[in-house]
Amino acid sequence: MEENGKTKEEILAFLKKAKAADTNYERVLSSMCTYPHEIAVLAHTQFIESNMGDPGLFPGTFDLERQVLVMFGKMLHHKNCPEKAGYLTTGGTESNIQAIRSMKNFRHDIPKPNIIIARSAHFSFDKVANLSGIEIRKASLDNLLKVDLDSVRSLIDENTIGLVGIAGTTEFGQLDPIDELSELAIEKNIFLHVDAAFGGFVIPFMDLDYSYDFKLEGVTSMTIDPHKMALSTIPSGGLLFKEPEYFECLEIHTPYLSVNKQYSLTGTRSGGAVASTYAVMKHLGRKGYKKVVSDCMSVTKKLVEGADKLGIGTVIDPVLNIVALDVPEADLVRKKLLDEHGWHVSITRDPRALRIVIMPHIKNETIELFLKDLAKAVK
Amino acid sequence: MEENGKTKEEILAFLKKAKAADTNYERVLSSMCTYPHEIAVLAHTQFIESNMGDPGLFPGTFDLERQVLVMFGKMLHHKNCPEKAGYLTTGGTESNIQAIRSMKNFRHDIPKPNIIIARSAHFSFDKVANLSGIEIRKASLDNLLKVDLDSVRSLIDENTIGLVGIAGTTEFGQLDPIDELSELAIEKNIFLHVDAAFGGFVIPFMDLDYSYDFKLEGVTSMTIDPHKMALSTIPSGGLLFKEPEYFECLEIHTPYLSVNKQYSLTGTRSGGAVASTYAVMKHLGRKGYKKVVSDCMSVTKKLVEGADKLGIGTVIDPVLNIVALDVPEADLVRKKLLDEHGWHVSITRDPRALRIVIMPHIKNETIELFLKDLAKAVK
Repeated sequence: MEENGKTKEEILAFLKKAKAADTNYERVLSSMCTYPHEIAVLAHTQFIESNMGDPGLFPGTFDLERQVLVMFGKMLHHKNCPEKAGYLTTGGTESNIQAIRSMKNFRHDIPKPNIIIARSAHFSFDKVANLSGIEIRKASLDNLLKVDLDSVRSLIDENTIGLVGIAGTTEFGQLDPIDELSELAIEKNIFLHVDAAFGGFVIPFMDLDYSYDFKLEGVTSMTIDPHKMALSTIPSGGLLFKEPEYFECLEIHTPYLSVNKQYSLTGTRSGGAVASTYAVMKHLGRKGYKKVVSDCMSVTKKLVEGADKLGIGTVIDPVLNIVALDVPEADLVRKKLLDEHGWHVSITRDPRALRIVIMPHIKNETIELFLKDLAKAVK
Repeated sequence: MEENGKTKEEILAFLKKAKAADTNYERVLSSMCTYPHEIAVLAHTQFIESNMGDPGLFPGTFDLERQVLVMFGKMLHHKNCPEKAGYLTTGGTESNIQAIRSMKNFRHDIPKPNIIIARSAHFSFDKVANLSGIEIRKASLDNLLKVDLDSVRSLIDENTIGLVGIAGTTEFGQLDPIDELSELAIEKNIFLHVDAAFGGFVIPFMDLDYSYDFKLEGVTSMTIDPHKMALSTIPSGGLLFKEPEYFECLEIHTPYLSVNKQYSLTGTRSGGAVASTYAVMKHLGRKGYKKVVSDCMSVTKKLVEGADKLGIGTVIDPVLNIVALDVPEADLVRKKLLDEHGWHVSITRDPRALRIVIMPHIKNETIELFLKDLAKAVK
């Protein structure tokens, strides 16, 4: 650090330059983040000094978090005190880590526990494995890229404490058969965590005949991220357990705070993100989110139809607003799209395809421009 | 969630009510958080949609983070590419978790590793133990509440992979003898993590004859929190390793992002907090932080002198801006101060004393008012 500080004007000028070097979301087709809603930013800023790591000092923010949990509960058919059965995390990774940690703590009778996830699960589960030493077994997928039930069943043994199902896979937006996983979890008397980090704010606002939440008896915890499709600010994740007692498995004794227990993974925790999530959920309501989702799905359809006209199909029929375009030499096409046209797309692992997430910042006009450049890039 | 959203005005009115229920920091003498600096809030808001979990999309913010790491490096006498040897975390807990995870990954040849911390260490190490299953051994303290070197030495065995020293204990603001821990770590060829979450932005700005950073050969990683005494926004923690290779031990492969590796504990990560930390550190400079710290120390002195006039001593002579007042029936006095006067103070564990953290929001006038109420409460 330098001895003398820079003036406010110097700092703001430098920040402006740094900001200009960042990519505008307008050309980002690879991210599950987007611009937060205006009201989310207002609320975040208003509560920016609030620390949910010490909630006794911030009963107002704490109450906002309880109301968010109740809203989650309603969305996810939760039956038993959602306001006591979860919290707002920093995002999907913390939620997944904590869900597995709760299973492990609850089943401390199992010395070498394992859990079973789909091969399509998010890389946060690799962090869980590395952090906790818990064995993670990866089940294979069926030809629609959903987890294969027979594979899951074959991996279960006496040390298996839980399963993970995904409602909206990161790569393909595919929906695992959570109803069948739920039956299996009940049969084997083990936990079932549903990672709906992305799908949790999409599925409830579509007309889908799909069960994936606490309506299913076997579902014991869920990840659902407000800083993705809910338009809240970073860092806003959600974690909800079926029963408060599973949440309480995360308890750590805390001396010298205004409360004597803490359940979160982090200590100091953003009250700004809590207020932001409350504000945007209350402001949009179900009707607002239905509009967000139906707009994204309409742009998704436009992309699929436009690609089809170029002779490009999709790896699976898109279920949510995520599209995997089946393009030969996908890595090369991706590079061309970036280097020659400034588009950020990503690549799925298996099969290698062009992955595009249609977030709310992607408009019809964006897709028109993108399709023109795609046509050039695949030539 | 309700079907119809509320208007912006309705939301803002409700947020105002919630905000009024939160405690103003002016009566909070128990927290290591405070109001962030104005420029920190401005920068955070400007970069609020930036996600450092996908840094390829945000090269401008990524560069700001590199510059913060270089500033940390200068402050902490780091010698080998600080910009490649750490990152901005969500706070002290993530930093401590990741430091221990790196030790464990580096020493994967040890099947049942243990680490040794002081009994005075932060409760985040209980989270580390619960998460990782690593054994945490707690060394006793000397009569000045510093970690006892003989106790540390006696706990080391062939499975010990690291030690933790604290530069500014959460309860008493005491400084462990990091120089001696460093010698011990070198002798035993093990890691030494220094938790300077609080002290990291206090000690460098005082005239103290105290070594605690990478100037000492044995120090292999450090926690230092910008959202405490550096006046940055939540969530801003810092983690810096002596060598880039220790940092690289945290690597997880990430498909479908703009980069193919991730080192952080969380996935999505606040770029707003990165910009905020950059802005406030550049704006205040060493001179600015010296003023912040010297003001806090002057208020600390005022509190100690005022308490002394009431016949109340301190458990140890305060080294930093944390005071433990040796009051009989501390729990009762704490309750009276809160119930009758609205002051939030906390209680140390052993001995039980009134703990007061003099953050920048505590002014001389605050302490004058507090001392008057303290006089009534101890009667």
